[in-house]
Amino acid sequence: MASAKTVIIRFQPHNREIQVPAGENLLRAAVEAGVYIQASCGGEAFCGKCRVKVERGKTESPRSPKLSEEEYRQGFRLACQTRVLEDTEVLIPVESHLDRRIIARTRERVTAGRRVSHQELESLVLGWCFSPALRKFYAEIEPPSLKDNRSDLSRLLLGLKKTQGMEGISVDFCLLRKLPFVLRQSGWKVTATVVQTRMESQLGEYQLRGSRRPKLISLEEGDTTREHYSIVLDIGTTTVWAQLLDLNDRKTLAEDSDYNPQIQFGDDVITRIVYSQKPGGLKKLQETLIGTINGMIRELIARSGVNPARVSHMTAAGNTVMTHLLLGLDPKYIRESPYTPVANYIPPVRAVDLGLEVGEHVHLYTFPSVASYVGGDIVSGVLGSGIYQRKPLTLYIDIGTNGEIVIGNSDWMVTAACSAGPAFEGGGIKHGMRATTGALEDFRIDPVSFEPMLLTIGMVKPKGICGSGLINMIAEFLEAGVITPKGKFNTDLPTRRIRPGPDGNEYVLAYAGETATGSDLVITEVDIDNLMRAKAAMYAGYVTLLQSVGLSISNLEQVVIAGAFGSFIDVERAITIGLLPEVPLDRFLFIGNGSLLGARLISFCNEMLDDGERVCRMMTNVELSETPAFMDNYMAALFLPHTNGAEFPGVSARLAGKK
Amino acid sequence: MASAKTVIIRFQPHNREIQVPAGENLLRAAVEAGVYIQASCGGEAFCGKCRVKVERGKTESPRSPKLSEEEYRQGFRLACQTRVLEDTEVLIPVESHLDRRIIARTRERVTAGRRVSHQELESLVLGWCFSPALRKFYAEIEPPSLKDNRSDLSRLLLGLKKTQGMEGISVDFCLLRKLPFVLRQSGWKVTATVVQTRMESQLGEYQLRGSRRPKLISLEEGDTTREHYSIVLDIGTTTVWAQLLDLNDRKTLAEDSDYNPQIQFGDDVITRIVYSQKPGGLKKLQETLIGTINGMIRELIARSGVNPARVSHMTAAGNTVMTHLLLGLDPKYIRESPYTPVANYIPPVRAVDLGLEVGEHVHLYTFPSVASYVGGDIVSGVLGSGIYQRKPLTLYIDIGTNGEIVIGNSDWMVTAACSAGPAFEGGGIKHGMRATTGALEDFRIDPVSFEPMLLTIGMVKPKGICGSGLINMIAEFLEAGVITPKGKFNTDLPTRRIRPGPDGNEYVLAYAGETATGSDLVITEVDIDNLMRAKAAMYAGYVTLLQSVGLSISNLEQVVIAGAFGSFIDVERAITIGLLPEVPLDRFLFIGNGSLLGARLISFCNEMLDDGERVCRMMTNVELSETPAFMDNYMAALFLPHTNGAEFPGVSARLAGKK
Repeated sequence: MASAKTVIIRFQPHNREIQVPAGENLLRAAVEAGVYIQASCGGEAFCGKCRVKVERGKTESPRSPKLSEEEYRQGFRLACQTRVLEDTEVLIPVESHLDRRIIARTRERVTAGRRVSHQELESLVLGWCFSPALRKFYAEIEPPSLKDNRSDLSRLLLGLKKTQGMEGISVDFCLLRKLPFVLRQSGWKVTATVVQTRMESQLGEYQLRGSRRPKLISLEEGDTTREHYSIVLDIGTTTVWAQLLDLNDRKTLAEDSDYNPQIQFGDDVITRIVYSQKPGGLKKLQETLIGTINGMIRELIARSGVNPARVSHMTAAGNTVMTHLLLGLDPKYIRESPYTPVANYIPPVRAVDLGLEVGEHVHLYTFPSVASYVGGDIVSGVLGSGIYQRKPLTLYIDIGTNGEIVIGNSDWMVTAACSAGPAFEGGGIKHGMRATTGALEDFRIDPVSFEPMLLTIGMVKPKGICGSGLINMIAEFLEAGVITPKGKFNTDLPTRRIRPGPDGNEYVLAYAGETATGSDLVITEVDIDNLMRAKAAMYAGYVTLLQSVGLSISNLEQVVIAGAFGSFIDVERAITIGLLPEVPLDRFLFIGNGSLLGARLISFCNEMLDDGERVCRMMTNVELSETPAFMDNYMAALFLPHTNGAEFPGVSARLAGKK
Repeated sequence: MASAKTVIIRFQPHNREIQVPAGENLLRAAVEAGVYIQASCGGEAFCGKCRVKVERGKTESPRSPKLSEEEYRQGFRLACQTRVLEDTEVLIPVESHLDRRIIARTRERVTAGRRVSHQELESLVLGWCFSPALRKFYAEIEPPSLKDNRSDLSRLLLGLKKTQGMEGISVDFCLLRKLPFVLRQSGWKVTATVVQTRMESQLGEYQLRGSRRPKLISLEEGDTTREHYSIVLDIGTTTVWAQLLDLNDRKTLAEDSDYNPQIQFGDDVITRIVYSQKPGGLKKLQETLIGTINGMIRELIARSGVNPARVSHMTAAGNTVMTHLLLGLDPKYIRESPYTPVANYIPPVRAVDLGLEVGEHVHLYTFPSVASYVGGDIVSGVLGSGIYQRKPLTLYIDIGTNGEIVIGNSDWMVTAACSAGPAFEGGGIKHGMRATTGALEDFRIDPVSFEPMLLTIGMVKPKGICGSGLINMIAEFLEAGVITPKGKFNTDLPTRRIRPGPDGNEYVLAYAGETATGSDLVITEVDIDNLMRAKAAMYAGYVTLLQSVGLSISNLEQVVIAGAFGSFIDVERAITIGLLPEVPLDRFLFIGNGSLLGARLISFCNEMLDDGERVCRMMTNVELSETPAFMDNYMAALFLPHTNGAEFPGVSARLAGKK
């Protein structure tokens, strides 16, 4: 493909080179190279500050009104508007009031951790084949006659036996209402959708190997075997993700995400449980969530252009509380010691009975949970990442509001959950937002002037800050000495951007005129505190879990980062703030939304249900709230990167060197 | 028991004796003995006509205002008010204008056919044991602790395994919503209702031997094993019957019946199908029926005093069209050649989904049908009567609006349905009504004066005529020469009771002053014509079916009469009008509502499901409407008893002897 061509960009006066795909945006390349260019409008060409001079090489860049014709002729360009087509050398003008220290202080960025593609992801798991639980069969049925006027249903079943060799099929009652019309309107040429899964039996440790009788759930006129879709859902505490899958060729046709609307009733699982106990609370929580999912289903349909009637299966993974709320099960006793959920294995539910706007033949399969705070989302992720099949000692972290942690390998696994709060998903942050257009996702700071360099998703005016942007920012602040290890702004710095605000001191990322909102975009000390508490909970969680099995961070052979959010994270910066453990960077593996990964796998391969349940059985849950060490570890982690520098020797040394 | 004592009553001047239970009503005894006493108020002591003189023996009888003190002292009594306590001799005053011919003309009544009790009925079927599909188990569950905080569901299943040895249980999702509360509010002492039946699999000839995994459908606080109920329904075209069963001790706790409210939309299955094709018609038909059933359920609950929440199973039997309408399945193609129903085997349906007002855990099991016009009701009846297990060649007739016929034995069975119309159930008859209080059920006519003797159900003023009363009446009319074999009134007779009316000639059974309605109670030639057409359809049905297998009435070794109506029928009179075949009376067996019989059997014995399905498979359906001989047989039967006297030699000879 043409896009495979790469070009080399050399930034001066830094004399730093980076190799990027041809056509790459110059501002983005600079961020990637660790080169600071002033930029406060997110990349929308509004502020005109990111001017550079192209010294050599071919670029494509319209003349912005911010540049005179003379400047343009001389080679000046706005970096945010420039695509690099050939090997290029670019000069970054250093303003007179800044000295050259800036160059010395910039540091080469390390591309750390392995991010794997969808195709690769599915190959993380061994020994599965493409065999969806749902199959479609086209059959031409012999019409009835006076000599053979058996019932329509018997005729259909006989037809499926003759043409497909299918026997022992049971039938969904709902199908019967339209059966005679589908048969006749189609001239007795129909497509049957058959699910072969344990519709009734995956209910706990006592009957895991239930029969898998095929069940006829839908009948369509003519040959519709080519249209065969499934929807997978990840119900996160803060964010809901959905994908529409093509069950014929294991493709993901569309993806969508949205905030979990239950946020309005509580930020985390505990406050949601509290709300569910109010009169009508549980119903309200379920209904708002279902409403959001319905909107996402419509969006998936719109984006993919598929016929919604051809969606015949849904799989959902979520933490235990989200699963309860999705299904309308009361989570009350999850919150009270000894923390028991209603059920870990949930029988499939008819989706329309939950209010989901899909065909009435669609059943929702819910990923089994392990315990009250270790849910189907992590089972799904552990399944999808294949760590239960391999020897290396792995730390699996699903970074999210309800952070979930697994440690183990193919022999054993321990798991725990810790309530990190919604900061990673932009929740509880003054100008926090999800990682969508306008979210500040990457950030550099001029180590001398302390002016920011903002890059937003979609390169538009900044609207807010997403979780990964927040981590990048705090790490930059820490490295530049803008904040202290306690997360407080250094008010002695010569910058007007640090100022008092209603939530303590704050740093102005962009002034009103440069933002999409029309007001100043700031990050406050309260925001920083929220992030610190979130990262401390995650860190304390996996350290405590390691301690519980007599291990430590140095034993880890692999760190798998899951969570939609996790895929955008800059691992080095996440280590810098003490969120991720300081292990060699090549041990990190980013799998993105692990919960969707497993759900997709199950959709594509019926046989993986067994593995999912095996994963469940393998996991031993540790209740962190009942483990005294957890609180000590948490308190110790409320520092950047950590009160004990020995836990982050590399970061500590680097920070010390900058002083 | 005291009531087992019998007394002998001798009627004079007839010099006829009858043995009856002590305490028997004298008027009823007279009817039974075939002795005519004038009586036109149904037995309510209103008309005062049934005066008799007790010559000897002890009776109990209040003095009616219709009798003077002098008459009372002389021994005159109103027969309808008199209970016979000892052997008694009674003189029936013969009015002066009547001569003694009356005595010569009365004829001893034959108590024909064997009516069996509930207990006997259940013994008609061989080899079944009391083993309901639904069982209740009391279990004391170990509460959760931090060391064992498995989910509530896993805990419950483990408890059932430990205390009951039950494994491999699947669970109804609906149960999960209340699970945590039932467990805790009961202090972990609960009763589980488990159904072990093919909830998903009894769907046609290809997988009849499906697995029978136990399924947990309900959980109740404390030990409720003693309260364990089921409801069985017979959905007839004209009448709906319901029984509440105790699943612990195989008792019928309450029974109720009502007209099928769909009558307002059409008298028979064909007109119902026609109505179902109108906009909203199918929904309307279903809803009105469900509404009536709900009323009957409330009535069963009220009569039995059981806790409605403890009803956990429903079984319904009905003809194919009624089954479709009950379930909301479109019966359209049942009416169009080649007459195909949607399904013969229906998967169990959650009762609340149909609008039935029972617990949401209750599933409705529907008896499988054989063909479009041979429904689950007859399968149920054939099952319940055990004829599929025995050698004698049997004719099984379910007399009703949709008459159903089976001929066969343990080796083979043929079956057919014929639309008889609702006359047998009081439908389409000017003053027709169901067999409830006030319905004229027995009838004698003075062969000289042609004055009537009416006996009503409940012995109250007559309100209308029920099916069995109608048959009795027409047979009496025929024997007395009041009507011709063509069903026309003999207007030459010296009685004012035969008069012209809006529907042709009519006979006044009771004048306005003697009825509960306040207007004349009559029977018209149109009524008689309706009954003749109904009986002709039944007769032609079984004769045609016999012919189709090369047999005739003389081959019949047993005649089983089913239908709630059938249990009230007077077999001799039914032969007289040509409804039942003229075979020796001891070959008749009355089983009452066969449909309920089988449904009850299934409720009590899960294993009989297999037999029910075997019965289905054994039956070969004959479409009478496609059999030319049927119409010939029908036309020939539109006569009393039949155009061919040789078909009813006994009746014909008797009638000839009276001329």
